[in-house]
Amino acid sequence: MSIEDKSVAVVLGVGASRGVGAAVARRFAGEGFHVVLAGRTEGGLDAIRDEIRDAGVTAESFVTDATNAGDVERLMAHADSLGGGLRVAVYNVGNNRRGTLDDLDMAVFEKAWRENAFGGALFAKAAAWHMRARGQGTMIFTGATASLRARPPFLPFASAKAALRAVAQAAARELGPDGIHVSHVVVDGGIAGDKLFRAFPDRAKRAGEDGLLDPDAIADAYWALHVQHRSAWTFELDLRPYGESW
Amino acid sequence: MSIEDKSVAVVLGVGASRGVGAAVARRFAGEGFHVVLAGRTEGGLDAIRDEIRDAGVTAESFVTDATNAGDVERLMAHADSLGGGLRVAVYNVGNNRRGTLDDLDMAVFEKAWRENAFGGALFAKAAAWHMRARGQGTMIFTGATASLRARPPFLPFASAKAALRAVAQAAARELGPDGIHVSHVVVDGGIAGDKLFRAFPDRAKRAGEDGLLDPDAIADAYWALHVQHRSAWTFELDLRPYGESW
Amino acid sequence: MSIEDKSVAVVLGVGASRGVGAAVARRFAGEGFHVVLAGRTEGGLDAIRDEIRDAGVTAESFVTDATNAGDVERLMAHADSLGGGLRVAVYNVGNNRRGTLDDLDMAVFEKAWRENAFGGALFAKAAAWHMRARGQGTMIFTGATASLRARPPFLPFASAKAALRAVAQAAARELGPDGIHVSHVVVDGGIAGDKLFRAFPDRAKRAGEDGLLDPDAIADAYWALHVQHRSAWTFELDLRPYGESW
Amino acid sequence: MSIEDKSVAVVLGVGASRGVGAAVARRFAGEGFHVVLAGRTEGGLDAIRDEIRDAGVTAESFVTDATNAGDVERLMAHADSLGGGLRVAVYNVGNNRRGTLDDLDMAVFEKAWRENAFGGALFAKAAAWHMRARGQGTMIFTGATASLRARPPFLPFASAKAALRAVAQAAARELGPDGIHVSHVVVDGGIAGDKLFRAFPDRAKRAGEDGLLDPDAIADAYWALHVQHRSAWTFELDLRPYGESW
Repeated sequence: MSIEDKSVAVVLGVGASRGVGAAVARRFAGEGFHVVLAGRTEGGLDAIRDEIRDAGVTAESFVTDATNAGDVERLMAHADSLGGGLRVAVYNVGNNRRGTLDDLDMAVFEKAWRENAFGGALFAKAAAWHMRARGQGTMIFTGATASLRARPPFLPFASAKAALRAVAQAAARELGPDGIHVSHVVVDGGIAGDKLFRAFPDRAKRAGEDGLLDPDAIADAYWALHVQHRSAWTFELDLRPYGESW
Repeated sequence: MSIEDKSVAVVLGVGASRGVGAAVARRFAGEGFHVVLAGRTEGGLDAIRDEIRDAGVTAESFVTDATNAGDVERLMAHADSLGGGLRVAVYNVGNNRRGTLDDLDMAVFEKAWRENAFGGALFAKAAAWHMRARGQGTMIFTGATASLRARPPFLPFASAKAALRAVAQAAARELGPDGIHVSHVVVDGGIAGDKLFRAFPDRAKRAGEDGLLDPDAIADAYWALHVQHRSAWTFELDLRPYGESW
Repeated sequence: MSIEDKSVAVVLGVGASRGVGAAVARRFAGEGFHVVLAGRTEGGLDAIRDEIRDAGVTAESFVTDATNAGDVERLMAHADSLGGGLRVAVYNVGNNRRGTLDDLDMAVFEKAWRENAFGGALFAKAAAWHMRARGQGTMIFTGATASLRARPPFLPFASAKAALRAVAQAAARELGPDGIHVSHVVVDGGIAGDKLFRAFPDRAKRAGEDGLLDPDAIADAYWALHVQHRSAWTFELDLRPYGESW
Repeated sequence: MSIEDKSVAVVLGVGASRGVGAAVARRFAGEGFHVVLAGRTEGGLDAIRDEIRDAGVTAESFVTDATNAGDVERLMAHADSLGGGLRVAVYNVGNNRRGTLDDLDMAVFEKAWRENAFGGALFAKAAAWHMRARGQGTMIFTGATASLRARPPFLPFASAKAALRAVAQAAARELGPDGIHVSHVVVDGGIAGDKLFRAFPDRAKRAGEDGLLDPDAIADAYWALHVQHRSAWTFELDLRPYGESW
């Protein structure tokens, strides 16, 4: 199937090859979407794009600063100009930035918000503009435990994720009647990806088999959200490893 | 595929042919499960069983009073004795019983609780006993808007559904580490089934296309929960029509 | 001030002398209410009544089974017949009944519900009947951590407390416009009362100073709810010791 | 009582004379605090300060940009240098900024966050620094319905308020064990203050008597939080008019 016949899925926040963004991109590509991989680093994006293409599907990379309105608008306009146009938009940006009031770095606090909530709102606005014109679409935002509960030492991350969740919730209520499905996924646990493996190699071992969220399993949930019938849409679901204490 | 090679799914709370219980049963039967349809009325169950069998799949009915411990234990023991044994258990019992403090009928208040929370706990206990022995299983409980928000004139229903949700949540936390996936589905909106069509024929018309939850779409969500990888299990998700105000 | 000039406060669920029920009774008596102490045990109630009277205030005891409709209606009718009539009703019934699915005793599950939710609904209904006739009133329900989160090994208690919370929430929405203020207090932590001291003497020591909730401090919160201006009523608040992890 | 013998309460977000900030200031001044009124407009602050002083209590104004770290640190350092030092800090900043994805003004989105969440975090950090040194303190943050539910057309406000709530929640968990009480008040309804009277004069009429929150009633709740015993602290409570639908 050539790009001309495909719908387009944008995934913003593609970092490591083993990570949620890349897994979601692979999954949607495998289901017949043309996927636009967006993120900050050209080299990283291109490597993942090449991996995905090896599976015989179509994908391209688009360097994007998620906090820059022009970048995000260009990303969506480009995606919508391809094949059957923009159909799916996944926002997967944001690192777990730490801090307590003790030593709170306000630049970190702001950065956490900007990449999660400000970027998320830019993304929702730009995607909505194109999706509304087509009368359909799916938008999915990656949340975290901290989206619902704010605990030290995650004050910046929790505040940013709560702000993003509110963006997603308001968007879901606004866009649902226009046929656009907005979801927020609460990832509750460590992700078995390169980010965690590099930063906390021991944690991966301690977690045991399936004790960390498999990015492909997260991607399955995103796909399941996309294919929901419009008479029964989910706004929010949680995802956690079977043995996780919560 | 004969019953001997199949895993078994129990659906308790099968009422009308067009309803959530029957739709879930059909979906799991279509995916290769042997389905045990359980409910109060032999005639109704048998009719639905026969419909499902027409699709070339296997199903049987088992008359069960969801609030009777012996009945529920027999249901689970029977299901677990078939083919590959009990794998999936869906609890879909409970009507939207109304009442305000003004005229609260305590018998209705108790009935609502007994069919939702007491029955749900019986169900979880009996299913857990068999699933633990097998080291795996999926249990899904049908919730409602009222599970999360109690509003007049739904005091009995809301109290009962909140009590059921707590059963499901405690069960999920207890059973997860044993490999048993427990979920609670918040159905937020009217269901396009026989129950609503009979009671509120006008509401169906007013809702417009896909303005009520299609039971088959709800069944899709139950299936998607069942097939989740154990590294990324959902406890709770909401389902509502795209145009629903919430 | 004689009883004739006083408004009446009913406290149902007065057990130990050092406990929430007794503390709330003392507090309202000290503020000029005639207090009706209600509970199951005549001897215990009378002893607390006598203690309270020693402070020069008025109080009486009324043996009541919180799960018996006739008892609860008589309690409210009696209270409303005294002095200025029924003004405040506090429902403080329910023990922390434990259980997991492993060994769930359904009689315990039912008992937990009956004393919390069924009794709470009886209480709300009977109090509302009298308060509506007077166009004002305050009802307060004692909740717990488990009202909001269900965790093993507290399945029966959590289900019962969630059911009670829903009763209170529906009641608040129904009765607010009639001038009746309904609140639900989430007590999140151990209470420095006779119940805990007897059952877990070591826990009291480990908790350190003010590490357990002082019943008088809880009573302060109930009083603060009662005196709220009707333009700014609270439905729900949490209470926990300053050092509690949550 | 002279300032030297008084504890100090800072109220940041004092705007109109009839408003929450001014009412809280009056209430704490009336209870014996020296109050520092902080806000953007010198003239407005001074007028309110003069009104409060007319009641024979002590107060002063301090022009502060809540989003400027230096301003907020100076405010707290000044307050802590007076009399018995900083004891109470109330953050009451933030307007209900509207917007939908349709026409979302990202400058408004950012402004809403900056005055609510960024300012709130600056405030918590600066107040915590002084309160920790004294081993005690009370911090209260003004929230809104939108803190918990994000609905169009309040996307910017809801996202900002959710972010502020997370700051308050993380702060409460971090600072509680240090003897500092942090609370978040969910104001659910229109406030009977100058802001609403000017913008929506008809709404005030429609609301009827006590149909809008009286700022003095809100101030009562803040005072009740401050005087809570540390064995039974509230993190969050809601406030709404008795007739409000919710």
